[in-house]
Amino acid sequence: MNVPLLVVDFIDRARNLYGNSLAVSCGDERLTYSRLAERADRASAAFARLGVKSGDAVAYISFNCHRLLEGYYAVPQMGAVLLPINIRLTPEDIAYILNDSGASTAVVDRALAGLLAPVRARLTQLRTVILMGGDPAAASPLDGEDFESLLAGAPTTFARPDLSEDDVAELFYTSGTTARPKGVMLTHRSLVLHALGGALLLGCDDRTVQLHSIPLFHVNGWGTPHSVTLTGGRHVMLPRFDPAQVLETIERERITDAFFVPTMALALLADPAFEKRDLSSLRRLMVGGAASPPGLVRALDERLPGCAVMCGYGLTETSPVLTVAMTKRGATGSDDELRDKRTTAGIPIPGVRVEVMDDLLRILPHDGTSRGEIVARGNSVMAGYRGHAEATDQVMIDGWFHTGDVGTIDADGYLRIVDRKKDIIVTGGENVSSIEIEKVIYEHPSVAECAVIAAPDAHWGEVPMAIVVRKRGMDVDEAALIAHCKGKLAGFKVPHRFAFADAPLPKGGTGKILKRELRERYLNAAS
Amino acid sequence: MNVPLLVVDFIDRARNLYGNSLAVSCGDERLTYSRLAERADRASAAFARLGVKSGDAVAYISFNCHRLLEGYYAVPQMGAVLLPINIRLTPEDIAYILNDSGASTAVVDRALAGLLAPVRARLTQLRTVILMGGDPAAASPLDGEDFESLLAGAPTTFARPDLSEDDVAELFYTSGTTARPKGVMLTHRSLVLHALGGALLLGCDDRTVQLHSIPLFHVNGWGTPHSVTLTGGRHVMLPRFDPAQVLETIERERITDAFFVPTMALALLADPAFEKRDLSSLRRLMVGGAASPPGLVRALDERLPGCAVMCGYGLTETSPVLTVAMTKRGATGSDDELRDKRTTAGIPIPGVRVEVMDDLLRILPHDGTSRGEIVARGNSVMAGYRGHAEATDQVMIDGWFHTGDVGTIDADGYLRIVDRKKDIIVTGGENVSSIEIEKVIYEHPSVAECAVIAAPDAHWGEVPMAIVVRKRGMDVDEAALIAHCKGKLAGFKVPHRFAFADAPLPKGGTGKILKRELRERYLNAAS
Repeated sequence: MNVPLLVVDFIDRARNLYGNSLAVSCGDERLTYSRLAERADRASAAFARLGVKSGDAVAYISFNCHRLLEGYYAVPQMGAVLLPINIRLTPEDIAYILNDSGASTAVVDRALAGLLAPVRARLTQLRTVILMGGDPAAASPLDGEDFESLLAGAPTTFARPDLSEDDVAELFYTSGTTARPKGVMLTHRSLVLHALGGALLLGCDDRTVQLHSIPLFHVNGWGTPHSVTLTGGRHVMLPRFDPAQVLETIERERITDAFFVPTMALALLADPAFEKRDLSSLRRLMVGGAASPPGLVRALDERLPGCAVMCGYGLTETSPVLTVAMTKRGATGSDDELRDKRTTAGIPIPGVRVEVMDDLLRILPHDGTSRGEIVARGNSVMAGYRGHAEATDQVMIDGWFHTGDVGTIDADGYLRIVDRKKDIIVTGGENVSSIEIEKVIYEHPSVAECAVIAAPDAHWGEVPMAIVVRKRGMDVDEAALIAHCKGKLAGFKVPHRFAFADAPLPKGGTGKILKRELRERYLNAAS
Repeated sequence: MNVPLLVVDFIDRARNLYGNSLAVSCGDERLTYSRLAERADRASAAFARLGVKSGDAVAYISFNCHRLLEGYYAVPQMGAVLLPINIRLTPEDIAYILNDSGASTAVVDRALAGLLAPVRARLTQLRTVILMGGDPAAASPLDGEDFESLLAGAPTTFARPDLSEDDVAELFYTSGTTARPKGVMLTHRSLVLHALGGALLLGCDDRTVQLHSIPLFHVNGWGTPHSVTLTGGRHVMLPRFDPAQVLETIERERITDAFFVPTMALALLADPAFEKRDLSSLRRLMVGGAASPPGLVRALDERLPGCAVMCGYGLTETSPVLTVAMTKRGATGSDDELRDKRTTAGIPIPGVRVEVMDDLLRILPHDGTSRGEIVARGNSVMAGYRGHAEATDQVMIDGWFHTGDVGTIDADGYLRIVDRKKDIIVTGGENVSSIEIEKVIYEHPSVAECAVIAAPDAHWGEVPMAIVVRKRGMDVDEAALIAHCKGKLAGFKVPHRFAFADAPLPKGGTGKILKRELRERYLNAAS
């Protein structure tokens, strides 16, 4: 019997089996799975009344919150597409995404209304704004329907249309090799198989209490919204990353599972509350989304006895988790050797094959030294970039998704990331396009040439570094360029470091700036 | 990216990640996943040389053994269909199955050659017999190729043809409402999604050491061959069920997971070795395949502290596990109340929906009292009965598979089996068709009327009971009828109890014998 694989089956199962169990803790609010599912149904019914149709994108501009989690089921069960938007972007960025996706509806936290208000008039396809959170009576720069009133007036059930497992369920914008972000299309089938494989490898079950410390708009919250609902576990929402609050929440909610980018984990370790809080409920702690500084896993190991600390690796395009650095059965070696494995990117989740390939697309041996582009094959790889067939074809070659990262695989199957082929910078878990930054710097009247590279950084993993050649007779300095960038780029995209070159930048035969040479010259000198 | 869901991906993953880890212990033999996978590849190559083609059925007549496990991957990776045959059947039964399935090849354990030799001449479509196990030089009643010689002469790699996830990968014959068994077709997609859901609910991981105490020819070994390979766990093969040997194996191999039918569990508890062996490695023990006698789970709980003991429910047609009676998060109640839940059929594995329906096909409430036919919907339900479209249509109605069993579902989602709608008897985990037994009894010249019903039995769960009306003037007795049946039926199908009625059996309007009345009359009186 073939039954479509639908991500909304997860909420059905949770409602059927865990209806009276706590589904989500969110500030002072605590909802059972019955209540969460009913609110999702009401939201679907309300959206339908407002004209949302199958195939429409419904954007959420929201902190982590139970309303966003409801959207993970309310939107896809209509055949519509959930579009969670990164709230660290500028209004300009967000306007681009809303227009590019053709989103008909935006559900906006009142505290974030300022992200949409300045560009509202230019959102040509956005028909409906819905405001949630905060005080509905307070003045807002943005007009919109009140989410809770809509839910209160909506029927408690929603009759689903027929859905196909190949329907797009979620859309996430990511920066890649192009200046503009592209929408990554994830189908029901991708999300279901990713959740099953990820939950199985991580050992999720109904005792899992997941801290959603990573914003869910980030690469699908690293897959945790679905794997937790699937297994009937409990979601704990945190609107912002505040180290003391995270530590207090782990103690209060008896968190078992959490996922952090390295900068978050470093901030937690540095917080005085780390010693004071009871963190003994933690069973698994994944560190990923950016390169992990040496010593981080060791420090977490030492200070979290009884918790399995491991790195992981994935991309928006892969739903996202590709690999998890768990300790395998039969692993032998010293504590340091075993820890070393846990600091790699890890082994693939069930259902995904990961290899490294040379430039001739030959799969390289698992010998720990052969370096090649990391490629992946599996159902959790995206359907493609929305409206960018050419960009999709560039990364999907002969049935393999090309990550743009460079790595090795050892004889035990552990993947190590050693370099990045694509021109992006991963800073504090955010992907930033070098080209996007370069475009802005080039707009400055004093700049003749510019190239942005990723500089290693103990805190952020990487930060953007700009190498600039001034126009003859111009004397623009770092402070002026930072001021120039700040109005035009989201804060995390503004270069942390600048270098000024006197001669033209080195170029290849086609006139392309050779960033490899710049990295050798500026980064080796700096380190 | 859509990639076909293939059961052979499991062995690829195990070979890649657990190549040097132990895959299977089988008597004195111990094979790593590299070796297991290589032997499977060699077997595929050898089968191909012998003319096995995509779509062919390849029968295994075998005890649990690593060679049968190799067949679980060697046959499906050719696009052929694995057909494990119940070795408790008679040669006649086996001939029927081989001819009905059109199997081109049979791989037979030398110790079981006697099951095939008497009917070999009548196997019109069977081209090739391959003999394995035992001494190739010893005299055999059956001619055939030697399995190990074929493997030794075969290439070490096998180039797979393109496979579709909807291809049939396995075929299991089961007795249902018809006298003749029917072939249940399980596709790659069904098997993959069943393994993922089952492994996730049971918490399988690479530390799992699975005792294959249930013959793998039984409803796909309850799904354990695939869930263990998928997670990189270890298989431990036992050719026969011998209580002392099972207990010794649990101790020696540090078994974590086992699955027993109730009669097996009772035999283990009754064995003097139970007290003497170290069974502390057991983490999960599933009891299923037949109704569990009261007190069995309690006895196992008391004597296996630290092991989660639970019942389960499934059918060949559902790959097979539908439900597992695990204790859910947040379950409250006395020890007895919690144990009571673990003696139910349980809650559905992820990916499967189970409901009870009334005769008008309306889903009944989860109230613990509404009784209806148990129905299931999900990808792990079979593609159909091979060559029996009509029989398939009778059980697949509006997208639901009708089990023929009757049950209730309580407010917590636990399924309880309360009756059987189909005319079958489940004895010691074997399905037996009443009609098949009746046909044989009717062949006796002294029998005027006969009806076979399921009588409850403390040891076997159920046993066949025959109610017979003698022809006028005839005085056939129980001993004579048992002798009559023994030559014509497999041992477990021969009625354990007989009753002789003086008057014609009660019949409905269409002349059909009313077994319900017979059950009331003979079973209530007997108990």
